[in-house]
Order: sequence, then structure tokens, then C-alpha cells
Amino acid sequence: MAYPILRRSLFVLIFIAAASSSARADEGMWPFNNPPLKQLKEKYQFEPTPQWLEHLQKSSVRFNSGGSGSFVSANGLVITNHHVGLDTLQKLSSEKNNYVHDGFYAKTQAEEPRATDLELNVLMSIEDVTARVAAALKPGLTAEQSAAARQKAIADIEKESKEKTGLRSDVITLYQGGAYHLYRFKRYDDVRIVFAPEQQAAFYGGDPDNFEYPRFDLDICIFRAYENGQPAKIEHFLKWNTQGPSDGELTFVSGHPGKTDRQLTVDELAYMRDDEAPFLLNMLKRREVFFTAFAGRTFENARRVRRDLFGIQNSRKFFDGYLAALLDPEIDRSLKAREQKLRDAMTKDSKWKGTLAAYDRIKKAQEETAKILPVYNYYETSRGRAQASYRAPRGFYSNLFKYARRVLRAGDERPKPNGERFPEFRDSYRESLELDLFSTEPVYEDVEQVMLNDSLTDLASRFGYNDPLVQKILAGKSPAGRAAEVVKGTKLKDPAVRKQLYEGGAAAVTAAHDPMIELARIIDAPARDARKIFETQDETKQQAYGDIAKARFAIEGTSTYPDATFTLRLSYGTVRGYEQDGKQIPSFTNFAGLYERSTEHKNEPPFDLPQRWIDKKSVVNPETKFNFVTDADIIGGNSGSPVVNKANEFVGIIFDGNIQSLVLDCIFSDKQSRAVSVDSAAITEALRKVYDANALADELGK
Amino acid sequence: MAYPILRRSLFVLIFIAAASSSARADEGMWPFNNPPLKQLKEKYQFEPTPQWLEHLQKSSVRFNSGGSGSFVSANGLVITNHHVGLDTLQKLSSEKNNYVHDGFYAKTQAEEPRATDLELNVLMSIEDVTARVAAALKPGLTAEQSAAARQKAIADIEKESKEKTGLRSDVITLYQGGAYHLYRFKRYDDVRIVFAPEQQAAFYGGDPDNFEYPRFDLDICIFRAYENGQPAKIEHFLKWNTQGPSDGELTFVSGHPGKTDRQLTVDELAYMRDDEAPFLLNMLKRREVFFTAFAGRTFENARRVRRDLFGIQNSRKFFDGYLAALLDPEIDRSLKAREQKLRDAMTKDSKWKGTLAAYDRIKKAQEETAKILPVYNYYETSRGRAQASYRAPRGFYSNLFKYARRVLRAGDERPKPNGERFPEFRDSYRESLELDLFSTEPVYEDVEQVMLNDSLTDLASRFGYNDPLVQKILAGKSPAGRAAEVVKGTKLKDPAVRKQLYEGGAAAVTAAHDPMIELARIIDAPARDARKIFETQDETKQQAYGDIAKARFAIEGTSTYPDATFTLRLSYGTVRGYEQDGKQIPSFTNFAGLYERSTEHKNEPPFDLPQRWIDKKSVVNPETKFNFVTDADIIGGNSGSPVVNKANEFVGIIFDGNIQSLVLDCIFSDKQSRAVSVDSAAITEALRKVYDANALADELGK
Repeated sequence: MAYPILRRSLFVLIFIAAASSSARADEGMWPFNNPPLKQLKEKYQFEPTPQWLEHLQKSSVRFNSGGSGSFVSANGLVITNHHVGLDTLQKLSSEKNNYVHDGFYAKTQAEEPRATDLELNVLMSIEDVTARVAAALKPGLTAEQSAAARQKAIADIEKESKEKTGLRSDVITLYQGGAYHLYRFKRYDDVRIVFAPEQQAAFYGGDPDNFEYPRFDLDICIFRAYENGQPAKIEHFLKWNTQGPSDGELTFVSGHPGKTDRQLTVDELAYMRDDEAPFLLNMLKRREVFFTAFAGRTFENARRVRRDLFGIQNSRKFFDGYLAALLDPEIDRSLKAREQKLRDAMTKDSKWKGTLAAYDRIKKAQEETAKILPVYNYYETSRGRAQASYRAPRGFYSNLFKYARRVLRAGDERPKPNGERFPEFRDSYRESLELDLFSTEPVYEDVEQVMLNDSLTDLASRFGYNDPLVQKILAGKSPAGRAAEVVKGTKLKDPAVRKQLYEGGAAAVTAAHDPMIELARIIDAPARDARKIFETQDETKQQAYGDIAKARFAIEGTSTYPDATFTLRLSYGTVRGYEQDGKQIPSFTNFAGLYERSTEHKNEPPFDLPQRWIDKKSVVNPETKFNFVTDADIIGGNSGSPVVNKANEFVGIIFDGNIQSLVLDCIFSDKQSRAVSVDSAAITEALRKVYDANALADELGK
Repeated sequence: MAYPILRRSLFVLIFIAAASSSARADEGMWPFNNPPLKQLKEKYQFEPTPQWLEHLQKSSVRFNSGGSGSFVSANGLVITNHHVGLDTLQKLSSEKNNYVHDGFYAKTQAEEPRATDLELNVLMSIEDVTARVAAALKPGLTAEQSAAARQKAIADIEKESKEKTGLRSDVITLYQGGAYHLYRFKRYDDVRIVFAPEQQAAFYGGDPDNFEYPRFDLDICIFRAYENGQPAKIEHFLKWNTQGPSDGELTFVSGHPGKTDRQLTVDELAYMRDDEAPFLLNMLKRREVFFTAFAGRTFENARRVRRDLFGIQNSRKFFDGYLAALLDPEIDRSLKAREQKLRDAMTKDSKWKGTLAAYDRIKKAQEETAKILPVYNYYETSRGRAQASYRAPRGFYSNLFKYARRVLRAGDERPKPNGERFPEFRDSYRESLELDLFSTEPVYEDVEQVMLNDSLTDLASRFGYNDPLVQKILAGKSPAGRAAEVVKGTKLKDPAVRKQLYEGGAAAVTAAHDPMIELARIIDAPARDARKIFETQDETKQQAYGDIAKARFAIEGTSTYPDATFTLRLSYGTVRGYEQDGKQIPSFTNFAGLYERSTEHKNEPPFDLPQRWIDKKSVVNPETKFNFVTDADIIGGNSGSPVVNKANEFVGIIFDGNIQSLVLDCIFSDKQSRAVSVDSAAITEALRKVYDANALADELGK
């Protein structure tokens, strides 16, 4: 009997060590209404004022295509990463004008092309509506009734806020259901491109260097927000610091981390490790091979799928790294110790002892969910880190299919009362939905056809060729034949047709007899059924996590921050290198290092320099600091976040984390995990010396 | 009730159409003891003599690395494909001498480097031993006893033949168990490289052009067989025709098709379609992404894994194409009709009616096998088209692991009576096993480590991190940590150590405490258990297929040929183009087309020309015929097969099938399916004009 006690003691020891190190470390992605004031004061003797915080908050911009950015001029200039802007660059490019490959610079405002469907959000206010949501959940409701009641309460709050303020209003679920906060955003949907370097400069080193350090990437893209056809007048924008930060300096990151798993139970993380991550990796690797092979055939093929391929490779490398972390026994022990500590505290306190059952409820719900996941993933939406709008069902990987489903479901959902609709069809989200659905982004028939063929093949492999629903979907054709038929036959390639059917409602949609819409109709009922089960079980989980969160608040105090939710968070960290394989990796790289790396690799892809950088080699200052690392707590979605100093000046822009940082998804560590940024000094030097963009450089911070 | 009868009639009609078309077509991979004399006479009025057949048979060479070839000189020259020789080229290359990338030409015999572990086989005789194998199967045996009895009978026959003739003696299972033939081979294990072009000339167009046509590939590699340290004196070799074949000419292919599924039941093909092909594709795509990412980091990384990556991409494209064929409803109907025809004939004949039950026995055995397949694939050997020696268990993808298992099992198996050992440890196979095990091929620690890490990660994802066996395998480490430990710790990198342990037997193996061997030991029992179940069920299937084969012989006559078994077969076909998407694809390409394709693709990889081809552009005759297609019935394993004319002269060499030919795995078609060859005229022109290898060109056919 001594053994378990010994083990328990060991856990406690490990935990204490972890906790005390954590207290000193720069941990946390903090909501702006709960900033880490205590930690900053204790460790850095720095006390940001409310004005300091408000200025940073309102200078920060969310890219709804999946990333972060910031205002850097009074006339609406917004800086983000190239790989965040890539979605827009790709959609605006053609075989003739390849902005992705060649880069772009609008010397005058008249030359700034408008994005096809880009929406920017600026967080204006946060309101705690937990009590109001909780009040809607009368005792004795089933999970299904409770989910419906919660959805209705949220929809009512959002609609009321939208009507009152005119602002986009989203109720955000924090602490896995422990709290509900109403976020109000100012929307910008007229966004234009000002500047982008060549992708090869932005993403120098390609997939091999992605998530690695040292790096040499000018991963930036500059947009301008417009209102009423004029450059937006911006009150809160960041001052531009041309020097960048110093080694050892305290810096802040204000951005939109997408999703972390730090509050997940050990059981849910085991599920992530053994099921979800392998499932996603399987899908990503399949798609990577598919797109790589397609891209290899012609230059134009490669151009058409460049953004897709980049996104897939990026996710694949992320999940490979995250899975490796989850399979590390040291991390496994830390995760278990973290949960055990809270469980032990609950066990000792009669007030919270009953909450332990919440862990079992989560596990049970997880098991129930697992049963419908194949159908949910292949027919409704595949899970993943990407924004929902990027996620197609695994079996129907096609933009035209996404349009078809949107149009079909809009016809069925929009006549319902606002609170009973799927969230994506609620009134408060209408403008965003329409921006997306009526996008003028190009539709490539060949790409659509081969993508759909590949995913129908995947679907048939998953459920079996003779599965009745698969047979109905294929309609007597091969996957290739069926994909050709619906892609060639659909009229949805034309945004005007999408608009007409969307506005015409269910009757118009039915009358259209569009083959892609009819395909979406075939799977609509099973997809909806799976979603309902998924959401009901999710409701059970949210309630259980809410119970655990209450206990955690009571036991650990408000010193915790919620898991990331693609909403604005404040992180902080010191510029500092790290040790790897016995070698000290320095904090900064410089321009000279870029040229050295190219020489080492005989300037062959993906280590080839754009011609402009070769031509300007003698002009640029080789000592210019290029990229740097800090120990700030960031994750995917933080891409494009400004890095500011204590004076709230722009000193850099986050664009990556090193491979050791991928563990941050589930647990914080600052031993080797680093956030990687482009130095503001590099941006200034490159704009002036490489891109001859002095006018733009002059405007930054003004 | 009319409906089923109508359907039956439809099936019969379809079948008759198919059968009559088939009778006219150039179908079949015929064993040399059952050549298609009747078909050749009827369609082509050609009657090969026994001498003609013997000459072609004995001029044909099997590459045990997985391919075909032929003798083309009295002094032991053997020609095969570059992608067949690639295994040897890779093993002999280093960072300094990169034969794969740069090509190789030995101007004198003294400069010909010896392959590390290449074995060539020449078929000397075939003997029908079906009756002797059958006699060993006493009535009333269980499947397990029957499998053991069959294995013992086969081992006895092989051993006796080997002792009597000195020739490698393999009993080959034909017609899925319908017949057993003893094949005797002359072995050559001193094989040296004479000539190889740059891989970029051999595999011009890379993965995008693989399995496509038109093509422009000099996919050849020339070896020389040695005996007693001297060039082997060869009685049967092919005369060299410098002109190649003409459009419409009858040609023959003599080679070693690896595996076809044409006699499989519809249920087994459905299993292939819904389970096995997706399983293999999942593994291949995972590995392709893994190796591509690894290769992307440095030139030397890319060099080290080039052969692996080629093999993986080649298999991936094959299985993608084969799966597409299996998902085609037209092919599905043909396959069903083929089986239904035989079943109908059985139903009508009281003698064979009872045999119908064999179909159910196969299905049942398939279902039983499916239960242990995960363990079998991950721990014993993953299935696939590749030769067994290339197949590592999916969870332990490492050459060092393969050595470790060989050494471990040799210690346990070799003391057993010959007939009770695993086939790979039988006396008749000893020389081949030792050639492989004592190979001096380089072992790259970094490659071994990352491959094993990736496959241990895959294993943990498949069975779950907390699976007791997985935990035992990982031994408290992460997959990366465990892989590093066993790869760094093992002494098996040294062939002398492998030899010493192999010869020392089980006691020496145990005393070595080698970490890789101990890893192999941890999984040995479960792997053996899975293999036993697999083989017992396979025995049940063989018996059932044997019963069906008997009925088929009786009903259809001996006009059928057995499924491919990587043994020598004769195919034949006409040089002819085909129609695709309304366009006529011509039979031949020429040198001019190669230069045009390079220009179209701005000479960028994989459409870049080797420097030598750029330099010699003005010297070569642009009209030289390069590649051509015939409608011969071939499949993987036929790579490197000589194409001969009626005069038994070498006119070309098979190197690929077009994408439409991938269906040939399960059913013959000559509508668009084509075998792709290098023209002998191209080889002659390239050797003389591009490679300045006149001495070699002079020796061909002499």
C-alpha cells in the first residue's frame, strides 16, 4: 500500500516543480479583460495602464481568413503575415498576374486591389454574459434540450447586441463552458492589398524550414482597410519602431491564438493523441500527396493550388510535432500531474468532491461522440485547427460543394426563428456569411474535379463501395465520373447564381435542379443527424467542463487564463535564445545569414532567393536583424500578431513557433519553446532597399 | 420473378461480348510450359518452335531485387531498367560518387563495380509437382495440419531438387493453389554494373509522367554477370536489333509479372478495393510525405532516400490507379459477370455444383484473416506488391530491424527440421538469404532513426499509446527516443557482426544483448502468432481456390493462364497507339519530343534535361524513335522485360504501363491499356551519340 502513496507524493513533487517554474515563466494567453497584471508587476515591475491596454487592443486586428494583424497607420494600413494574406493573394492572382509568386506593391491607392472576401475584425468591447446564458438552462433539461436552450440564449444576446450597437456580436465560450463573454467587433469588409513580397522571400526555406529556427523569412503582407470607398480613419494604430527589440527585452504579443487544449482532461488528450491527431494526419498526408502530384504536372497547376498545399503542409508539420509531444512520456507525466493535482484538491474538499464525476461524464460523451465521428467527419465537417469556413467535409473536399451546401441550407435554415438556426445562419453572422458566399474568388473546374474525385474515393474507401449511401452518392458512376458530372454541371461557379438562389430560398434552390446542390441534398439528412449527436454530446461536455472550471476557479483562484478561442489575447515574453543539442541558438538572425543559407543550398528550391534579393545583395545592410525569438506563449492563429515593446511600439511580427513550441498546444514550457518573429528593422530595410517602397515605409506608424 | 432472370440474361450477354473480344485480344501472361500457341497461330499465323521458346526463356533473367531483364551478349551483359538497377546503384553510391544522379559507365571490365547483394535467376526447367504436393494432404487434416504437411512436402521437393541439380529450386503455387510447379533457376550472385544513364534521363518527367504516355525515358541499366571472377559465358542471349519494331508489328514480352488478381473471387476483390488498397495507400502516402520532407532538408538527405522515395511514389501511383479501376462500375460489372459465368456453369453441372461452397470458404477465411491483419501488418510484414524482402512490418520500417529479425529468427529456425522452418530459412533458400543478410550496402544511422521513429509513431497511433505491447516496445521512451536508442546502440550495422551472430546461432544472439535484436524479440511471439493464423487461413483459401481451379479447367479448358507469381511468363502484343479523350495517341515518341517537353516546362524539375543531353542536342538524330507502346498483357515485375520480334531479336525493353493499364491487375483490356517500352533504336543512338559508349554498343547482341 505504500507504493501508491509514494507515487502520489512523486506526482505532487513533480507538480510543485512544474508550478513554481510556471510561476516564473511567461505563460498565458490572457483575455484583455483579465490581463496578467500581477505577473508583469512581479517579474518585470511593469504596470500597463488601462489606456495602454485599450490602445493595444484596438490596434489589433483579426483576419477572418485565420490570423492576426495590426493597424500601423492612421490611414488604415494593416500589417499581417504573408501566409495570412496568402489566401487573398491567391484569390486575386491569375496565370498572368501571379501576386503569390512575384509579389505586389501598389505605389498609389488607386492601384490597391480589393480582396474578394476578406473580413477584418477589431475588438471593441467585452461583456460577461455567463449569468444570462446560465439562466436559460432550467434544471431537469435533457442534454438536447439544454443545448437548444443555450443556443437560443446565445442567439438572442448576439442579435440584441447587433441591433443595439451595429457591431458584429459573438458570444464566446471560455474555459470549455466555464464562462460566456460577449465580444463586439467592428467589421471591415473592404480590404485592399498594398504590399506583398514574393512568397519565396516570405516563406524562404519552405516546408523544410517551417516551424524551425534560425530563420530568414520576410513573412509580411500589408493591406489597407477602407470605409465608404475611402481609406479608413484609424484612431488606434501602433507607432513604428525602426530598430526592433534588443536581446533580453520584454515584449508583448497581441493576437488571436486559435485553439489550445490546456484545460482538456487527460482522457480527452489521450483521445487527441490516439485518434484525432492520427485521423487528421492521415487526411493531411493524403491531401499533401494529392496536391503535390497535381502541382507537379504544370506550372499553372502548381499556381492554382499553392495556397492549399501550403496550408496542408503547415498543418501536417504542426500535427506531426504536436503528436510527438503527446507521445513523450515526460509530457504525459506532466499532463497527468496537472490533472491529478486538481483532482486531489477536489477530493479533499467536500464542496468539490462531487465534481469529480464530471471527468467521467466527459469521457462518456467522448465515447458517444466517437461512434458518429466517421459520418460527422466525412459528411458534415472534418475537425481540425482551421477556421470552420475552411473546413469541408472530408468526403466532399470542394469549394463548389461548400457553396452548394450553404445555398441548400440557407433555404432551410433562414425561415426558422433566429435562435433555432445553425449558428452560421444567424442574423448576427449574416454579413460575414454573405461576404463568403458571394465571393468573386476564381473557381477552377479542373481543381474542383480532381479534389472531389479524390475525396469521393476516400469516402468510398472509408465506408465501402457497396454502402447504400455511397452508392446513392456515386449514382452509378465512378468517383471520377461523378465528380466530373457535378462539377461540370453546376451553375454555382457564378456568384450571381449563388446570390439568386440564396435570396430565392428553398423553392428556388429546388427548382434549380443543380447537380452539386442535389448531391449536397443526398447527404444532408445524415450529416445533420451526425451534427445533432455531436452537438448534444458537446453540450454534455460543456456542462461538465463548466463544473470543473468552477472548482478550478475556487481552488486555483483567477490566476488561470482560458484555452485559446481565436479571440484577442495578450501574451508576453523576453527576447532570448535557447539551447538545442548542446548548442546555443542565438535570439537574432540577420540578412547576411539569408545569403549564406542560399549559398549552402546552391540556391536551389526551396532555398532559392528571389531575383530581387540577389540583385540587391550589395545594397542591403548585411547586419540588419532579420528574425528573432521570444519565449511568449503563442500558437496557430497568432500568425501576424504585432510584437510591441513597453512603449507600445511595433517592434516585430509573429510568424511562427519553433518545432519545440508545438507542445504549447497542451502545456506551457519555456525551456526551448519559442515564438518566431520578423524584426521591424528587417521590414524597414527590405521595404526601402529591396522593394524601393519608400513611400510605404514612410507611412508606417504615421 | 422475371427481373432476376432478365438480369442473369444481361450478365450472360455482357459476358459473351467480353469473352469474344477477349479471344481476339492479346491477353495472357503465359508460363513457358503452356505457351499461347493456339492464340498466336489463329490471330497471327505465327508458330514459335520449341527452340524459339527455349532460347527466349533462357535469355530471360529475373532480378531478385524485383524486376526482369535479359542477356544481350555472350560475355554476360544483362540489360534491365534503370529503376530495376536503381536499388544496386543506390547501394553503391556515396555522397562523392553519386551513380544515381550522375550515371555511370565502366569503359573497361576492371572498372565494373560489384553489386552488394544482387541475385539474378535464369529459369532452366519447370516440373509439375502438383500430384506430389497433393499426396501429402491426407484426408481429415485440419487447416493447420494441412498447411504444415503442404509446407513440408514443398520443402522436401525443393531440397531434393537443389541437392540433385545444384540449382535454386522453388515450388511455385499457381492458380491460387490449383497447381504446384517446381522451377529450377541458375543463380548469378556476382553481378557488376557496366552502364547507367543519369536518373533524370531514365526517369524523365518524374512522378508526374510515371504511368503516363507519351514518354521520353531512357529507362535502362546494363549489368554484367560474372562466374568465378570472370564474365559469365552465356549460351542463350538475344540478338540486338538496332532499328526497333515497326507500327503494327507483333512483339513478345518475356518477363516476370509480379502479382495479378485475375482469379480472385468478387468478394476478395471487394476486400482489396475497400480494405487492402486503402490500407496500402494510407501507408504509402504517409511514407511519401515523410521521405519527401526528409529529402527536402539537404542534398545528401535527398540522395540517401532517393530509391525509397521512388519506390513509394511508384507504388502510390499504381494503387491509386488500381483503386480507381476497382471503383469503376463498368469494371465492377465485368468482374461480377466473369465470376457469375463460372458459377452458372458450376450450378448446371452436378459434378461441380458442390464446388460453389468454395466461394463461401474463401469469404470466411478472408473474414478470419481480417481480424488479425492489424497485428500481422504492423508486427510481421505489411502486405503489398513488393517482393517480400522489401517488405518490413509497418511498425518497424528499418533495415536494421530487418537484419535483427533475420538474425534472431535464424537462431530459432535453423535448428528445426528443414520442412518445419519458415520458407525463408529453408536450405534451398540459404544462399539467397545470406547474400541479402551479409550485404555491404551502406546503413545510414540518421535515415534508420527517423524511419523507425515514424513507424513507431504510426504503431502507437494504430494500437494506442497505452496498449501494453506498445508500452513494452517504447520502454518508457518517446518513439523518437526509443528509435535513437536502438539505432545508435545496435552493432548490426557491421555485416561481420551479422555474420558472426547468424553463424553463432541462438546462444550467440542472446549473449549479444543487442538492443535492436531485443526489440525484435519483444514482438516475436505476437508476430509469429499472427503469421500462423494468416497462413492457416491462407491454406484454407488455397484449397478452396484449388477446387475452383479444377472446375474451371474442366469447364473452360486449359485456355487459361495462372495469375502472375513473379515467375517467367510470355506475353505478346501489337505495336499500336490508342484513343484518349477523343485524341489518337501515336505508338512512338522520338528524341525531338524530349527536347520539346523540356522547353515547355522551362527545363525545370522534373522536366529538366541532364547536361549531357543538352550538350549533345545537335549531335543526336531528332527522329530517333524513343519510346513505344504495345497492347501486350503486362504488370509490375515486367519492368526490364525484353521485347522481341518474331526473329527473337531484342527490339525494346518494357519499363512502364500507361495509367489505363493499371486495371490489368484484375482484368484484361486492350482498349487503352498499353505497355510502354524503350526502343532499341533509342538505346543504340544514346549509347553512341550521348554517352560516347561505342564499345558497349558494339558488344550488344554479340
